[in-house]
Amino acid sequence: MPHISLRDDLPGISAGFAFRPETAKPMRELAHVLLHEPNSLTPGERELIATYVSSQNDCYFCQTSHGAAAACHLDNQETVKRVKTDFQSAPISSKLKALLAIAGKVQRGGKDVTSADIAEARKHGATDFEIHDTVLIAAAFCMYNRYVDGLDTWQPRDESMYAEMGRHLAEHGYTKPSR
Amino acid sequence: MPHISLRDDLPGISAGFAFRPETAKPMRELAHVLLHEPNSLTPGERELIATYVSSQNDCYFCQTSHGAAAACHLDNQETVKRVKTDFQSAPISSKLKALLAIAGKVQRGGKDVTSADIAEARKHGATDFEIHDTVLIAAAFCMYNRYVDGLDTWQPRDESMYAEMGRHLAEHGYTKPSR
Repeated sequence: MPHISLRDDLPGISAGFAFRPETAKPMRELAHVLLHEPNSLTPGERELIATYVSSQNDCYFCQTSHGAAAACHLDNQETVKRVKTDFQSAPISSKLKALLAIAGKVQRGGKDVTSADIAEARKHGATDFEIHDTVLIAAAFCMYNRYVDGLDTWQPRDESMYAEMGRHLAEHGYTKPSR
Repeated sequence: MPHISLRDDLPGISAGFAFRPETAKPMRELAHVLLHEPNSLTPGERELIATYVSSQNDCYFCQTSHGAAAACHLDNQETVKRVKTDFQSAPISSKLKALLAIAGKVQRGGKDVTSADIAEARKHGATDFEIHDTVLIAAAFCMYNRYVDGLDTWQPRDESMYAEMGRHLAEHGYTKPSR
């Protein structure tokens, strides 16, 4: 049972969004810019960052829905799993590994990010823009994850539902409700 | 020195906002709805929640600027200080104390919020809407704080600058840059 009266046919963040459309609008728009609009980081890379941070925050709904979106972009479910359990051994670029390390630091606390973390990302070709967006994706998922779990939203365990949601998000992004 | 190339005349989050106006827009809008638009929680109460979470996250820029906004709304600097150090002994309502307890749980992690925390807030008159906004203010400041510190933005120690910023925020809200 969610902590407040939410629609019981909407899973996870969708129920919070339906409860308060005024805050849903900018929250959707921020996710859309960060994860879906054109960027030198691919949508798959950005969804992996979102998935990794959500798994570090232990948010089932967010790590599963964004994991499904990442798998859809990458056409690869195994890489998503490996990023969550041990990204250093995952078949991804050295640049993305360095950005995931930064995202992991942001998840624990902004001050944990060091100049050495940034230098490592730059060494592998990360731009200021990519470092900025990595920091902000990680920070934003510290918000989305806490919103979803802090309201104790309904988070069904039906994998096919998340696969469908992932396909919808990968295709259409975040500005409109999926239903 | 910030981790990326930011304008050196803008403090804290303003420098990140200037670097990436596309993400600044929804981030400003979310803060404006949560902290400034009409609500059954007063702007002073909402700024106290933002200040408390920012102090728990040890973000100097956010706790000082929102603390100044709260002090301006409440016309009381001492209450702001007491909320940061020991809100249970602060001269605020029992409802706000119960909401601050929820905000503190969200700051640590969404799953830390218990049904007992929610029942306590309801006992003191908190509505579902107020509980929702408290959870989201706390979650959102876990983003803003990580963004400000994760980029290692310039956070001057000039108290009069924050007092001026607080007055501007209290009066005009968050949708437009203060300079």
